[in-house]
Amino acid sequence: MDTQAYLLQLGQAAKRSGFALANLGVIAKNRLLGRIGTELQLAFDDILAANGKDVAAARASGLGEAMIDRLLLNEDRLKGIIADIDNVISLADPIGEEFDSRLLDNGMRLCRRRVPLGVIGVIYEARPNVTVEIAVLALKTGNAVILRGGKETRESNIALAAAIRRALASEGLPEDCVQLIDNPDRALVSGLLKLDKFVDMIVPRGGQGLQRLCAEQATIPVILGGIGICHLYLDKDADTNRAADVIINAKVQRPTVCNALDTLLIHQDKLGWLPKLAQSLQEKGVKLVACEQSRKQLDGAGIASEAASDESFGTEWLSLTLGVKVVSDIDEAIAHIRHYSSGHSEAILTDNLAAATHFMNEVNSAAVYLNASTRFTDGGQFGLGAEVAVSTQKLHARGPMGLEALTTYKWLGIGDYTCR
Amino acid sequence: MDTQAYLLQLGQAAKRSGFALANLGVIAKNRLLGRIGTELQLAFDDILAANGKDVAAARASGLGEAMIDRLLLNEDRLKGIIADIDNVISLADPIGEEFDSRLLDNGMRLCRRRVPLGVIGVIYEARPNVTVEIAVLALKTGNAVILRGGKETRESNIALAAAIRRALASEGLPEDCVQLIDNPDRALVSGLLKLDKFVDMIVPRGGQGLQRLCAEQATIPVILGGIGICHLYLDKDADTNRAADVIINAKVQRPTVCNALDTLLIHQDKLGWLPKLAQSLQEKGVKLVACEQSRKQLDGAGIASEAASDESFGTEWLSLTLGVKVVSDIDEAIAHIRHYSSGHSEAILTDNLAAATHFMNEVNSAAVYLNASTRFTDGGQFGLGAEVAVSTQKLHARGPMGLEALTTYKWLGIGDYTCR
Repeated sequence: MDTQAYLLQLGQAAKRSGFALANLGVIAKNRLLGRIGTELQLAFDDILAANGKDVAAARASGLGEAMIDRLLLNEDRLKGIIADIDNVISLADPIGEEFDSRLLDNGMRLCRRRVPLGVIGVIYEARPNVTVEIAVLALKTGNAVILRGGKETRESNIALAAAIRRALASEGLPEDCVQLIDNPDRALVSGLLKLDKFVDMIVPRGGQGLQRLCAEQATIPVILGGIGICHLYLDKDADTNRAADVIINAKVQRPTVCNALDTLLIHQDKLGWLPKLAQSLQEKGVKLVACEQSRKQLDGAGIASEAASDESFGTEWLSLTLGVKVVSDIDEAIAHIRHYSSGHSEAILTDNLAAATHFMNEVNSAAVYLNASTRFTDGGQFGLGAEVAVSTQKLHARGPMGLEALTTYKWLGIGDYTCR
Repeated sequence: MDTQAYLLQLGQAAKRSGFALANLGVIAKNRLLGRIGTELQLAFDDILAANGKDVAAARASGLGEAMIDRLLLNEDRLKGIIADIDNVISLADPIGEEFDSRLLDNGMRLCRRRVPLGVIGVIYEARPNVTVEIAVLALKTGNAVILRGGKETRESNIALAAAIRRALASEGLPEDCVQLIDNPDRALVSGLLKLDKFVDMIVPRGGQGLQRLCAEQATIPVILGGIGICHLYLDKDADTNRAADVIINAKVQRPTVCNALDTLLIHQDKLGWLPKLAQSLQEKGVKLVACEQSRKQLDGAGIASEAASDESFGTEWLSLTLGVKVVSDIDEAIAHIRHYSSGHSEAILTDNLAAATHFMNEVNSAAVYLNASTRFTDGGQFGLGAEVAVSTQKLHARGPMGLEALTTYKWLGIGDYTCR
């Protein structure tokens, strides 16, 4: 079958399957999720064997150990993936709620009803856990899903998707509620991004390159996200005795993720404290990339650093590197954030109420913190129970996306043969 | 200045101006809107003179009278445009509301605050009223706006935008809160659609061609909408004595707009009633494009019709033409709608509760009506007080978009030097 014919069939099957899911009640959907857990359990050894093939192929092709660790499934990890399904089962189902109901002057009753989006396309990297996680979240909200995982986890994804599809079939639902594009041809990604007749939303879960590809090629609405150039501004009225822990937490607790701290903006009055902080950071393995003024201070205390640049301030480090910049006041900090931020997460540390208010008002990222670590921007931490992605755009959903981000609403109008 | 440099300057100025609007309170914003009304009043004669030039140029270039009527401003229309500003002043301001506030286990207070989107780009056809309407709605919600109107109303738009910008200046706000692209070069539209560093949302207000252009070229989230292939299903249990008025209303009351009826799906048991309905429709000037089975019935009663086709059922008529198709049951009607609908508005006429429930559940367009005309899909009718556009996509906003659709939210987290 040629690419276009394959994509057409894929889209049609997804749309048709979405209609079959749209009006399922929560008990039926939870039973389905439970069945997925059972099927994954039944296929436990097959899935690990399939993953073993992926790992062997990755090793043979010279992939680094960090990458191999990302795609590796072992008994514990697969058990964890299955256990996480129970968490999604326990979440409230947003579908079906009616809200904003009103009686119009002409006697018509009008309301909005929360409904599934329909079909969601998810493009992601070599993380087999995402295959199950996204399928389960999509099904919980009555959506069909088209999955396109990294080619390095092809065998694992085939085994996982097959188990999920068996669960669908055994519940009397169309298997095509969950479809996996297992052909590594890149043309299929471009084609998927243009299936606007059938797919309602694209979620790219991956790096800057994938995000740009989707923004540029998609004719379907895309949720961009997951890129965090995050800032923390240490105000002149911050309590430095307490601030160090927060800065270290934001940078060090998990440096490879999007909500980790990238740039520390430090008020010039606090410059004298910088060496002490820098020492604590360096003890944790943090490398500093600092502006001229802060380097002078660090040099004076014998602390090594590299020179920051316009480019370095626009970098998401995803590692134990921290940009440092001295600012003369809070407005310089805000201006820096507006210029360099990716709109993910920013924080101010201060005991001054006016500074706190000003920062919270003027900084317009998805999450803005007062006296807290940027590391909190996370669906689990926010109590959403699940996280589809972290959106850094402003439409539809912003910041951590829970189940509701996989829904829309329709307007229902009930008249009595009512004319305008 | 070359195109890229112009666009960069345009985007930067818009973004900067958006920040100046973001934290204005409702009194300041309403005062600004009032000032816009005053400035339009002061420039009343200049605006009409500018519009006169547009009309003369349109006549000279051989534009049709319908098109000229669309771009024409006269005293009454301009007075109406100014009066509509008072309506927007009277609307509640959604900005600043905090919602979903909660206390997390770690002691952090978390909430969402409603904030402006930032910068909105609107591309529209030769309707000078849109220039004022969109600027006023954007400013009411604290957004900067970039306007690109049809070239046939260039002079009118320049005069209108100048008055709006004078109002901004006299309130001490950046004039660039409202910018007009008055150069008719098409490359500027393509360029605007890719200004994703500065523009947060694109709203195309125009026909299918403009919508597709935006979907295909934009790297900015686009709100598609305003294309309505609308269906009304006459069920076997409809009260035909009352149904005729609704069908005629849906088709005839204003046939040139997106929520007008395009296709009547008629249950086969009601086929005998079709000639009577058709006669009433023809008295109103409606032309019928009918399926084979319904044509036979119409022929038998001596009523003229044309043959429908797959293509005609996929057409938004925007005129006094109505597609007619006989269906054997409600599910055939639903299947037809799912295939041909643009997701705008659909209706069922029935006195049967099971049929009503089934239709409202299974049809997934932006607005679904029971015993009411499709003509109700409208911001004013829905009580939203204003209408930015009618969205037919599922993300962010669906159906008539009021002020809230021009907003987003940010998460605010308030800790006490809280670490994860």
